[in-house]
Amino acid sequence: MSDLRRLEIIPVPGLPEIKPGDDLAGMIIDACTAPADPPIGLQEHDVLVVSQKVVSKAENKLVKVDPTDPNAHKPLVLEESVRVVRRRGELIISETKHGFVCASAGIDRSNMAPDIAALLPDDSDRSARRIRDAVAGRQGVNVGIVVADTFGRPWRRGLTDIALGCAGVLPILDLRGTDDAVGRELHVTEVCLVDELAGAAELVRGKSNGIAVAIIRGVDPAWFGPGSVREDIIRDPSEDLFR
Amino acid sequence: MSDLRRLEIIPVPGLPEIKPGDDLAGMIIDACTAPADPPIGLQEHDVLVVSQKVVSKAENKLVKVDPTDPNAHKPLVLEESVRVVRRRGELIISETKHGFVCASAGIDRSNMAPDIAALLPDDSDRSARRIRDAVAGRQGVNVGIVVADTFGRPWRRGLTDIALGCAGVLPILDLRGTDDAVGRELHVTEVCLVDELAGAAELVRGKSNGIAVAIIRGVDPAWFGPGSVREDIIRDPSEDLFR
Repeated sequence: MSDLRRLEIIPVPGLPEIKPGDDLAGMIIDACTAPADPPIGLQEHDVLVVSQKVVSKAENKLVKVDPTDPNAHKPLVLEESVRVVRRRGELIISETKHGFVCASAGIDRSNMAPDIAALLPDDSDRSARRIRDAVAGRQGVNVGIVVADTFGRPWRRGLTDIALGCAGVLPILDLRGTDDAVGRELHVTEVCLVDELAGAAELVRGKSNGIAVAIIRGVDPAWFGPGSVREDIIRDPSEDLFR
Repeated sequence: MSDLRRLEIIPVPGLPEIKPGDDLAGMIIDACTAPADPPIGLQEHDVLVVSQKVVSKAENKLVKVDPTDPNAHKPLVLEESVRVVRRRGELIISETKHGFVCASAGIDRSNMAPDIAALLPDDSDRSARRIRDAVAGRQGVNVGIVVADTFGRPWRRGLTDIALGCAGVLPILDLRGTDDAVGRELHVTEVCLVDELAGAAELVRGKSNGIAVAIIRGVDPAWFGPGSVREDIIRDPSEDLFR
């Protein structure tokens, strides 16, 4: 974050409908490298933000539900949760077995066949690593992967995309100990890089256009490194003031 | 969000140190239109994301504090708040008089002289409107403005930038009633556009590089319209499950 690079957010069209067992990484590579005007391609230090939905489909995290009942997935919400945090009417905010605090345990039925509900991937960091490894192995480029989903926030209306999992890119950019622009040491400066990348990608992925992948191009190579959403971003209940 | 536009996130260097009473809008216009390689400029439907810090400085929301006491601004936190939501040790999460729920009432001392603390602007939506009106009046272009600050989240580590105020750009993109990619009506699809724009801009603004303004270029003209953070994003306490 110290130089003046411009970033580009590039929607990747052409990903086919994903089915359980599909080679998602291969299909993403194909979509990125397909002829296009302008061409997209895959470049060193690109960050690919991938919708949770297509990951869940490829990993067969799909459950049959009664297509005539809009609440048919509700029992699944409790099955996927380890604790209910708040409940009001139909709305359930819970801590999922993966550690996320969100509505409906992240289960959703939009952009799905009416008789199918998609659960969250078992381990979205692992899902991200698999895609990253496949891109490195097949294309020879070092990319970051963020698996993104859409969550609400307690005190602000509207939803934003956040990272469920990541690979290759630092989850948190820790600027503590560096100096600010006037030479004072920065104190509280842990930037949640992958959540900002997920939100930025949503600006071109959208909800209604079927674009499941976006590339963020031009990011600082210093943002690449180890870490996972589970280890680095999910707040431990012991430091939580709101659970 | 229905077409395949690429977005560009452009850092704007060259903004001088802002002092109380400065013509912030004019200085932002000058920084955007100064000779640069590549040139930046101001284009129709650009969204300018402006750091709260420079707005607070221009609007003289500055308070003298004891430079030797790192907690000297703490009494200000309570003065700026209407209710304390959570407190643990030095950490105070409160609802500010502006309606935000955040740590330290948004008061911060980073990137400031040691004897100065900056409070939040009185009305960040109004601050955004002023900049927007100045750009329209002086440059003849219709831009969106987001005044951004860095907030934490209850269940996720790390901070992200969010919108304190906005003008010209829709705070929430309401996709309810539109169809998703498989023709089903979308249900919960209120995207908090300005928060995602703020977070995207942070990726180039950073905390340590002194870049207070970024342009997001290429956004859908359909995202332009009325609204404010105060009216459209701040959740009413009556619908709040976590206050």
